[in-house]
Amino acid sequence: MVGLSFKVTHEDASDSRAGELTTPHGTLETPTFFPVATYGAVRGLAPWELRDARVQGVLCNTYHLHLRPGETTVASLGGLHQFLDWNGPILTDSGGFQLHSLDRYARVDESGVRFQSPIDGSRYFLSPESCIGIQEALGADLIVILDQFEPAETASAGAQGRAHACVERTLRWAARCREAQRRQDQWLFGIVQGGGFADLRQESASRTAALEFPAYAVGGLGLGESSEERLRLLTASLAPLPRTVPRYAMGIGKPEDLVEMVTRGVDLFDCVLPTRHGRHAAAYTGEGKLQLRNARFAGDPEPLDASCDCRCCRHFSRGYLHHLFKVGESLAGSMLSLHNIRYYMRLLASLRHAIATGSSSLWLERWRAGQRVPEACLTAEAAAASPA
Amino acid sequence: MVGLSFKVTHEDASDSRAGELTTPHGTLETPTFFPVATYGAVRGLAPWELRDARVQGVLCNTYHLHLRPGETTVASLGGLHQFLDWNGPILTDSGGFQLHSLDRYARVDESGVRFQSPIDGSRYFLSPESCIGIQEALGADLIVILDQFEPAETASAGAQGRAHACVERTLRWAARCREAQRRQDQWLFGIVQGGGFADLRQESASRTAALEFPAYAVGGLGLGESSEERLRLLTASLAPLPRTVPRYAMGIGKPEDLVEMVTRGVDLFDCVLPTRHGRHAAAYTGEGKLQLRNARFAGDPEPLDASCDCRCCRHFSRGYLHHLFKVGESLAGSMLSLHNIRYYMRLLASLRHAIATGSSSLWLERWRAGQRVPEACLTAEAAAASPA
Repeated sequence: MVGLSFKVTHEDASDSRAGELTTPHGTLETPTFFPVATYGAVRGLAPWELRDARVQGVLCNTYHLHLRPGETTVASLGGLHQFLDWNGPILTDSGGFQLHSLDRYARVDESGVRFQSPIDGSRYFLSPESCIGIQEALGADLIVILDQFEPAETASAGAQGRAHACVERTLRWAARCREAQRRQDQWLFGIVQGGGFADLRQESASRTAALEFPAYAVGGLGLGESSEERLRLLTASLAPLPRTVPRYAMGIGKPEDLVEMVTRGVDLFDCVLPTRHGRHAAAYTGEGKLQLRNARFAGDPEPLDASCDCRCCRHFSRGYLHHLFKVGESLAGSMLSLHNIRYYMRLLASLRHAIATGSSSLWLERWRAGQRVPEACLTAEAAAASPA
Repeated sequence: MVGLSFKVTHEDASDSRAGELTTPHGTLETPTFFPVATYGAVRGLAPWELRDARVQGVLCNTYHLHLRPGETTVASLGGLHQFLDWNGPILTDSGGFQLHSLDRYARVDESGVRFQSPIDGSRYFLSPESCIGIQEALGADLIVILDQFEPAETASAGAQGRAHACVERTLRWAARCREAQRRQDQWLFGIVQGGGFADLRQESASRTAALEFPAYAVGGLGLGESSEERLRLLTASLAPLPRTVPRYAMGIGKPEDLVEMVTRGVDLFDCVLPTRHGRHAAAYTGEGKLQLRNARFAGDPEPLDASCDCRCCRHFSRGYLHHLFKVGESLAGSMLSLHNIRYYMRLLASLRHAIATGSSSLWLERWRAGQRVPEACLTAEAAAASPA
């Protein structure tokens, strides 16, 4: 592959690691988090605002972009990077998750997925081969196979049988996706599934690993299962995977999830939570999660988060933001989205730094004790050392 | 008054002039345009984006801020400048226009205006005195008297009588507003009214001028009357006013209106058009007004306006913006708002430059012939000279 590499730069007593993922659009430091730009824009935020929050990469949704404006249009406008003016790494998902959500609008068989557009009812067919073709036309740096999955929380009768069938089909589709890949400048992620069954996940992981993908994703988590269950299933999913390649937890998650999963060896995350919460007036801060619509913030002159260096915290008071939410000014949602994204970036930067300085166990101890200012979880020595 | 002054720096063969208006929050070059930040935010745009578009000042609506969050809250958060993080000049209107629009929710008599909040039905009373009190608590640099008005387009029976009564009442309220003023660091604008009657406007202007305000606004225009009629009424309104003080055309307007009014001697404008049009996908460009939802922009790789230096034009294609509007991403509306504001700022900067270099008649000739790239209206000599 051209211009793609991954290097674990620091390992830890736990399974955490810090690394560098190089793509044709730059190198990013792992563990890291990609905000979601579903239709090619992170809701309400311009790319220079993301860069200012030190975002390293973004995720776009293949399914949404395939429907509108279509990969041909994106390609004719120079591909995703030029389309959304993001010159850093971009990841596209495969659409598997959205097709699962489409439910009765989609029919799946071995050849692929037939579905109707919820926008205009027109008919589509997505196969492993066309899914790769679409992602190649879109032109992200990191792409994923088409998968079929059973959510982890399923405990109903027949769930194990369905989860097993999904794993088998995903393995066959994984091989077809590899076969279909033409571009040499994109890394294709295999996907581990297996629903709520640890042994099935372990099998899925080891058989996916046998296909020798350059990177692996874990899917089907974060969909309602308990946090303990999630970590148990994640651990089973990661165990058989090679330690030398990137591991990506799809659609994860809350700050707590990110931290715990980093200690299990995850390198990459994406999630809509920071932007969705931001639009709904919820902010992650050093004091925990705040709901800015709450009357107690009316007239509050303090910044959203005194520990934060984002533009929202440097420029606006909680009282102003509260007011903007009350009167329905969209600037408020954009600003809280920006702040939340910056919180995620600070969280992972601080954790990376702890891993690089061998002090992640104290970092974790402080975090688990309730410290929510990421930098305050570092030891004095780590804080004094220059960032890795 | 403290820290406030106005200087006409260049006059022209026409009535146009270029000047400098100094306020406690900086000096601005006139003629200029203030975008509208109704509730303390220009819809969808952060203050640093406005500064980047070289906006010099903004207008906030007293009526809206009085209802939510209330001037006491704004004052407790440090006043308007700190509230919205705008360290440049700010103008507040008096609420007169909004109360006129409230219609059946408002009852006006000599003492002031009784009205019910359309938000929660609670009762309010706005007098000339409380209007000044509110604007002093908000803390803008430029404030205006409470007025009552008859729109210029009224040609119905009794319109002249109503317009006359409005002029008389506005004159009495003007005197009461002056009397009520306490702060020495805000300039209070008198307002010329007179509906659709040139002689009445002339009378309103000369009697308002006799009250010796430091600056004057012209109200009741841009509400449906023809463009010719508007300019005729504006000319009548301006003639009796001193030439040494700033003149402000309230709520105006389209780019064409701004240009024609500058040639009649207006120094200051405000209007919701650039942001409202932007949210509705309409853009002012060197090619005229474009509707970005139009199918012909799908897949168009060109920038919105090749002559523009705003962030939207530097970073995005028309095809991308078209797509964002189609899928309902709010970033598109913010970006077109920003572009339109920058277009207004370029328009007035170029016209200022033409006035300062004595070449405004050729500028106007080119503009009236349909040239819509503001800088291309300048003569070669003016374009080569450093900006005034």
